[in-house]
Amino acid sequence: MADQGLSFDNPLFKQFAFYSGVVIVKTMSMSALTAFNRIRKSVFANPEDCALGKAMNKECKPTLTDPTVERIRRCHLNDLENVVTFVLVGLLYVASGPDPTTAAMYFRIFTGCRLMHTVAYLGQIPQPSRALMFGGGLVVSMLMAVDVIRKATF
Amino acid sequence: MADQGLSFDNPLFKQFAFYSGVVIVKTMSMSALTAFNRIRKSVFANPEDCALGKAMNKECKPTLTDPTVERIRRCHLNDLENVVTFVLVGLLYVASGPDPTTAAMYFRIFTGCRLMHTVAYLGQIPQPSRALMFGGGLVVSMLMAVDVIRKATF
Amino acid sequence: MADQGLSFDNPLFKQFAFYSGVVIVKTMSMSALTAFNRIRKSVFANPEDCALGKAMNKECKPTLTDPTVERIRRCHLNDLENVVTFVLVGLLYVASGPDPTTAAMYFRIFTGCRLMHTVAYLGQIPQPSRALMFGGGLVVSMLMAVDVIRKATF
Repeated sequence: MADQGLSFDNPLFKQFAFYSGVVIVKTMSMSALTAFNRIRKSVFANPEDCALGKAMNKECKPTLTDPTVERIRRCHLNDLENVVTFVLVGLLYVASGPDPTTAAMYFRIFTGCRLMHTVAYLGQIPQPSRALMFGGGLVVSMLMAVDVIRKATF
Repeated sequence: MADQGLSFDNPLFKQFAFYSGVVIVKTMSMSALTAFNRIRKSVFANPEDCALGKAMNKECKPTLTDPTVERIRRCHLNDLENVVTFVLVGLLYVASGPDPTTAAMYFRIFTGCRLMHTVAYLGQIPQPSRALMFGGGLVVSMLMAVDVIRKATF
Repeated sequence: MADQGLSFDNPLFKQFAFYSGVVIVKTMSMSALTAFNRIRKSVFANPEDCALGKAMNKECKPTLTDPTVERIRRCHLNDLENVVTFVLVGLLYVASGPDPTTAAMYFRIFTGCRLMHTVAYLGQIPQPSRALMFGGGLVVSMLMAVDVIRKATF
């Protein structure tokens, strides 16, 4: 059976850590992008946040419907739904001792799909580009999860 | 002390991987269900998504208020809030070397509650059925988290 | 190289489990607080939930715009975005064998920032208090993630 350890001594875990790190940084950067645009456009969710806009001599309009901010937030929520489940499943998957070649392929496809998903979402690239990237990532996560369940059935 | 390893060599981890796999697959299936209903009803969050509806000769009405889609999304968000925290706490809990009988009971109760929570939510089953399933899952996660904190206090 | 094990035998993992447990309990308590306020104010997202309000002889007004509940929910979502990514990155970070002093400092700063973030959010404390606590937590998570990626580059 392949190496199952959740540590950097296991080359597959190290690879998983790399790709997980990349998609998590991408997800966290949505937080920063939301904050940046809220301040830039002075559109805040809470009344007390207007102080941040007023400090820049901007009119404050508390709103939950700014198209730019809401688009970033939808992209962020989609990351939470997909990236977080990928990393959770991936930890269990690496611990199940999968075939390293298949695993590496899954990690790369997922990471590629999610990076391109963000480009398609924020760049408003015509569909079905975003739908395909979303689907690709979801299928990879599902395949990993099914493999975990199959190997863990007792 | 009980086996603490985060690998499939540890029977408790294997059990945890099984139940986590099940609840994560359930959570991810909400993504697919949302996509399916958005296309079926041609209700999308983004203007560019209308291309997906038009390909099926359907009128496009970008909307954030379709009752079917919003119900699935609330169920999905509730999963993210509860399933993700359960898996995170569970990893720490297994690593703390808990009593295997108690641990197995927690995993089963949580999984049962969350599966029934989804049935109650999507099936609009009269309350307090859904509230009880929600509460049951939350209590299990809290008990595991308190156990982790207690054992980790240094 | 420092101890990398994801088990309570590794003092750094034990410390990580403690701080992660605290921030996860804080996050899960938002679920309970939302439920409590939905019942107390009889404001529910789903028509069938009105049974919960009516059991207490309260008028039911299904609404998605109650300011108290929505503020708690925004705080909860912010936790999901930040606490979940911290715990995921932290697992990979501990497994990468970081400097224990730096790691402990990161865990403490993050936990302190997130606890104060909640106080600032729910207590509506004037900005930029909440923005600073949000930023502090995000910077810590980003530093850990960059360290993981750097060590995992192969």
